Amino acid sequence: MVLNYSVIQQDKSCGARLGLLHTTHGTVETPIFMPVGTQAAVKTMTPEEVKEVGGRLILGNTYHLYLRPGQELIREAGGLHRFMNWDGPILTDSGGFQVFSLGPLRKISEEGVTFRSHIDGSEHFFSPEKAVEVQEALGSDIAMVFDECAPYPCTHEYALEALKRTTRWARRCADAHRREDQALFGIVQGGVFADLRRQSALDLVGLDLPGYAIGGLSVGEPKAVMYEMLDVTVGFLPPEKPRYLMGVGSPDCLVEGVVRGIDMFDCVLPTRIARNGTVLTHHGKLVVRNAEYARDFDPLDPTCDCYACRNYSRAYIRHLIKAGEVLGIRLTTIHNLRFIQRLMQEIRDAIRQGNILEYRDNFLKNYLQA
Amino acid sequence: MVLNYSVIQQDKSCGARLGLLHTTHGTVETPIFMPVGTQAAVKTMTPEEVKEVGGRLILGNTYHLYLRPGQELIREAGGLHRFMNWDGPILTDSGGFQVFSLGPLRKISEEGVTFRSHIDGSEHFFSPEKAVEVQEALGSDIAMVFDECAPYPCTHEYALEALKRTTRWARRCADAHRREDQALFGIVQGGVFADLRRQSALDLVGLDLPGYAIGGLSVGEPKAVMYEMLDVTVGFLPPEKPRYLMGVGSPDCLVEGVVRGIDMFDCVLPTRIARNGTVLTHHGKLVVRNAEYARDFDPLDPTCDCYACRNYSRAYIRHLIKAGEVLGIRLTTIHNLRFIQRLMQEIRDAIRQGNILEYRDNFLKNYLQA
Repeated sequence: MVLNYSVIQQDKSCGARLGLLHTTHGTVETPIFMPVGTQAAVKTMTPEEVKEVGGRLILGNTYHLYLRPGQELIREAGGLHRFMNWDGPILTDSGGFQVFSLGPLRKISEEGVTFRSHIDGSEHFFSPEKAVEVQEALGSDIAMVFDECAPYPCTHEYALEALKRTTRWARRCADAHRREDQALFGIVQGGVFADLRRQSALDLVGLDLPGYAIGGLSVGEPKAVMYEMLDVTVGFLPPEKPRYLMGVGSPDCLVEGVVRGIDMFDCVLPTRIARNGTVLTHHGKLVVRNAEYARDFDPLDPTCDCYACRNYSRAYIRHLIKAGEVLGIRLTTIHNLRFIQRLMQEIRDAIRQGNILEYRDNFLKNYLQA
Repeated sequence: MVLNYSVIQQDKSCGARLGLLHTTHGTVETPIFMPVGTQAAVKTMTPEEVKEVGGRLILGNTYHLYLRPGQELIREAGGLHRFMNWDGPILTDSGGFQVFSLGPLRKISEEGVTFRSHIDGSEHFFSPEKAVEVQEALGSDIAMVFDECAPYPCTHEYALEALKRTTRWARRCADAHRREDQALFGIVQGGVFADLRRQSALDLVGLDLPGYAIGGLSVGEPKAVMYEMLDVTVGFLPPEKPRYLMGVGSPDCLVEGVVRGIDMFDCVLPTRIARNGTVLTHHGKLVVRNAEYARDFDPLDPTCDCYACRNYSRAYIRHLIKAGEVLGIRLTTIHNLRFIQRLMQEIRDAIRQGNILEYRDNFLKNYLQA
């Protein structure tokens, strides 16, 4: 099998586990956070910078790359890795989430989804087969099935139809998938309904895919509901396969996800809030663009080892952001991704030392009370 | 003296010369091109990246830094070097050029200039003494006198008044200047009038300043006129002091300036056109954002050794720029500054080898015919 996952250590008192994920472009430790490189770049960063902050596996967005520059151009370039000069593993989503997020710009049928480009309004059609074709052209290490992500809130009936379609589409994706150097993951749907999450998981596990994602969460529901859905879903997923919680990346959710047995995460949050002048610390968020930091010559986070914190003050970074200087958002992005990668390292260390629940409690006490 | 300049080699057949400029923050070779860090950052770049492309002496803009974040904040931070984490030499302009460029937003008197901020419309007053005070707070290695830059075109009468005021203001700057670790350069004005350039140069040389700039050129006049003004001006400047041509940085002008005896240059052109998707090559400009490069997998310039050219294709960089990804303009900026720094290195090598005129002819043949 192209993708090999092994559990190194399973925590005794919760779902947390250490693992190794072997892909075509190398091996990574889990639990892992994947920086998002939507348009073939992690926003503002070079691949070397992504590695320096600890990024090992990055995500590319199929919807965006299909529209611009197009998967055939990337295939000609030698694939996404070569196009963007990233030699580590890449996971691509299927475009499902983006296409369903287009709202009135898309039309769903059993065959697939017709949608209009957010760039130029042109009409396009995505089907399970098309999503696989595009991801095979991109050449990611891990591809995702084309799923229907139900909105929150939605009825039990709607969520049921969406999960059943997601299962049918997952089968079509698996049938269409050819690349032997690329793994195809399933996506569990089912909204906020425990019985539907169970059904979706059991249906997909029947397809014997090399990994399973949990989709349709962190779309507006309370965090407690998300955690409950993780609790009911993870139990039906095979322990020997990696579990990926899609689109989740706030620090508290990462820790809570890990203790429930999640191995992989991605989210634009750390990089997006960075561009808005907000940075992450163990004591919560710090809005460095606020006036109170104008004459603050401390680093963003005195305990951080990132390039920004080693070399620059809050006052300087605030100045850059206020002045519209790109270097400002480069520095906050570096810091936020480094913060998240250090958090994941701390999480892995805590699992290794058998005290992940204690770590979780301490972390949340500091992070949420700030 | 805080600033020491020595001519290492004077070309026999033209004005070109090799020199060493010793400043409080280190020694640089001349002729030199100074990347512009208007708002305490060379746009899009870290100091390490500026050094990697060969930048050794950078420029900061007094007008911008005075308005935001303010010179007192930078003084509190330990000066501009420490604020922006640049340990090499810095030259600051006086704000004169920017203030005079504000047009209807400013009012000139013998005492100084009242102007409105381009940021928030607030009213400010700059005088020779104020320009010195601000630059002393910034702590640059080289400060510039507060000058009146006449527009192009303007009458002989107007240019005469402006140069006389510039000389009076230069004297006031010299009288006000206190920092012993900072050199103060004069600025020759006189528009496009040979007799006025001569008068301005002679007047300023009488002040015995440690270096002289030539201002008020590259403001719209034909290049032939600029070269003529250089020819008439340089002859009246002391050979043992550095000569700085302000705001000039197109590759052909750099070469032509050097053969006329210029030692220092600054310009936003290489970084500004980079952000617009245009890159410099020995065969002229290349607009990488054009459609013709969409599937061009060559580097920006196959002969270039910069980070962008070593790792990325034109197709990728074009994609990034079209998609609004910051990494795109980071790569074109790196390339353009590296191109200019390599050009300056080639120029210094040619002077050393005694063939600068031949180099000039070859360079211009390739660069301008493309």
